[in-house]
Amino acid sequence: MALIVQKYGGTSVADLEKIRNAARRIKASHDNGDQVVVVVSARAGVTNRLIRDAKSLQAEPDGREMDLLLTVGEQETMALTAMALHALGVSAVSRTGAQAGIFTDSAHTRARIRKISGGDLREQLDQGNVVIVAGFQGISEEGQVTTFGRNASDLTAVALASALNAETCQILTDVDGVFTADPRLIPEARKIEEISYDEMLELAGAGSKVVQSRAVEFAKNYGIELVVRSSFNNNPGTVVKEEVASMEDVAVRGVALEKDQAKVVLSNVPDIPGTAAKLFQVLAEDEINVDMIVQNIGRAGKANVTFTIAVEDTYRAERAVHRWIEEVGAKSKVSIIDQIAKVSVVGVGMRSHTGVAATMFTALAEAGVNIQLISTSEIKISVAIDLAKAEEACRVVHSAFQLAREAPSP
Amino acid sequence: MALIVQKYGGTSVADLEKIRNAARRIKASHDNGDQVVVVVSARAGVTNRLIRDAKSLQAEPDGREMDLLLTVGEQETMALTAMALHALGVSAVSRTGAQAGIFTDSAHTRARIRKISGGDLREQLDQGNVVIVAGFQGISEEGQVTTFGRNASDLTAVALASALNAETCQILTDVDGVFTADPRLIPEARKIEEISYDEMLELAGAGSKVVQSRAVEFAKNYGIELVVRSSFNNNPGTVVKEEVASMEDVAVRGVALEKDQAKVVLSNVPDIPGTAAKLFQVLAEDEINVDMIVQNIGRAGKANVTFTIAVEDTYRAERAVHRWIEEVGAKSKVSIIDQIAKVSVVGVGMRSHTGVAATMFTALAEAGVNIQLISTSEIKISVAIDLAKAEEACRVVHSAFQLAREAPSP
Repeated sequence: MALIVQKYGGTSVADLEKIRNAARRIKASHDNGDQVVVVVSARAGVTNRLIRDAKSLQAEPDGREMDLLLTVGEQETMALTAMALHALGVSAVSRTGAQAGIFTDSAHTRARIRKISGGDLREQLDQGNVVIVAGFQGISEEGQVTTFGRNASDLTAVALASALNAETCQILTDVDGVFTADPRLIPEARKIEEISYDEMLELAGAGSKVVQSRAVEFAKNYGIELVVRSSFNNNPGTVVKEEVASMEDVAVRGVALEKDQAKVVLSNVPDIPGTAAKLFQVLAEDEINVDMIVQNIGRAGKANVTFTIAVEDTYRAERAVHRWIEEVGAKSKVSIIDQIAKVSVVGVGMRSHTGVAATMFTALAEAGVNIQLISTSEIKISVAIDLAKAEEACRVVHSAFQLAREAPSP
Repeated sequence: MALIVQKYGGTSVADLEKIRNAARRIKASHDNGDQVVVVVSARAGVTNRLIRDAKSLQAEPDGREMDLLLTVGEQETMALTAMALHALGVSAVSRTGAQAGIFTDSAHTRARIRKISGGDLREQLDQGNVVIVAGFQGISEEGQVTTFGRNASDLTAVALASALNAETCQILTDVDGVFTADPRLIPEARKIEEISYDEMLELAGAGSKVVQSRAVEFAKNYGIELVVRSSFNNNPGTVVKEEVASMEDVAVRGVALEKDQAKVVLSNVPDIPGTAAKLFQVLAEDEINVDMIVQNIGRAGKANVTFTIAVEDTYRAERAVHRWIEEVGAKSKVSIIDQIAKVSVVGVGMRSHTGVAATMFTALAEAGVNIQLISTSEIKISVAIDLAKAEEACRVVHSAFQLAREAPSP
């Protein structure tokens, strides 16, 4: 008898028929003698609708009210999932984040988990009940409902798996696992059998949406093995785990694409120590996430600074940059280009394989894709390119590293 | 400075524009210097959708899960209403039933209020905040979310008004107040300025849906004056209050119609003491609400028993009656007629005016409406009639008591 945590994403509980399907799957695990904790997301589309409603009432809704609003999505799914299990004769109870003892700090809409008591989950499991927990939410020490940010039901699942010492944590979604590239763009992309936490983190940071970054980070820190698989079939999925030596055999594990990027170019920046630091401080104060950064020295002690941001932050970034220009008394010019995409290759094998960057850049050059910015980490190379070339760039890079299904292993 | 409770029904918060309208109204009271507690219902249609979803998963969903599911409707409205107030520059916080300290027993989906602590409502009001409370819900001593049954946000409002010693409790809805008859059926129906709790209770029991019965009962027991008015205009509305002598000047305050009734006719019932009691006991065990009851003695010590029920209970009532037949070994025949309506006239003036029944029955007879059952209370006369004649019956009775707008006072 094992204790397993299963997380069902929004598309896996999108409508009543899909909720019934999830229930049948949960029943199979329960019939198998396992103790099952289920974490559910809001039905696909619900959270977006609630956010749209809130923003149409107020541009920047109060965080506390936003959390009370958003948590209704998961609460709805958890109760309906319990009912679907009851209909199959499975005894099940649902628990909100608060009832499951998920305690957080008070940072509404982006709370961090402080402690998980588990509430009466153990007791319920020992009585033979399936327990369904509403994802993405907890309760602050002041007794206020909090949420962890978008797609954070993964985090609830991993954190509960850790708190309850679960044997396995399954992330059930609408795809068969983690792929060498987005299969909607590149149909010959291959499912990855095993991937290390670090690779998964880099892929998530590079635009792959399969598992939320914070959940992977949590899983890494607490050594929770994740299985990412489809809720609609019984294919084995992808295991996300500690790095093992054989993982370095492959130079590149996968290719990720992030659209909706913008590039901010600042020319004529005074090349004085601390000036750029001040710029990124101002951006951080406004909670603008800066991704790639490049600085180069121009003429006469003036530098150019270029960085990328999410396109939705464009307006706020522009305001922040102008505030910085006034504060430091610079005569910098700002230009923002918003049709940008980021293509990345990720793999722990980069550490031991040489020529990965050369292979990538050559492939892009041959396809006529102009590289605007480059940034690298130990196991990742990212390039910013014109959005119009994004999908083609993915395809040529994917093919250059022979990641396709039919290709022989490199 | 007064403390007022305003309750907005589902049609008054049906969409974002209506929520904005409610917020403007709340702001007006707040600007006026009043302390305002707002109770909100789920947006019109939401509760029905949730119930439909639940029942499509399971014929009789678990009460606890049902309550967790249904409360999302009010939670959504309360957060959106707070945001709409923020957008108008009004400081406001929302509270769930649990956060407002509304403690109930554990009877899920039909919980009764045990105690109201008010949580931090007083403190919030004293700080100048409007407090928005989710209607129709509370928390049991075991910490489980409970609900009070359909349309029970009125009850939340009245109970909070009592607990907080509010000066007035306004029930804001989509009609101008309580009318002498349903204005959708009888356009010349007149708005009632003042009505006693007892009349209001009889009207609610007789099918008028303007204010929930339990809320009126609670208001009566604790002497809370209710003002029923439209959220879409500034017309004065109807005051529901203690009976005063002048209320007896009018014989009939209003006419109510309840459709969706069924009549169960049992013939050949053994005329032995306790037999009928046993029948209604069996019906009560199955939670079937019996309304009008008539019994008469037939031949040879056999009685006929006729009673009315809500048409939705027909199937369950039939099963219960057959169980009773087996248990008492009767040879009764059962027939159920489901196209029945109930027309009632209500007024405290009936106590001192004579001939009310005669006027009503004559009007019906002249219109060719056959009376199938009659039941009376001190201040009400109800008749069961053929559903097809229901609206005409209302019209002729309304006119017989000269209740129309243009008529001279009786």
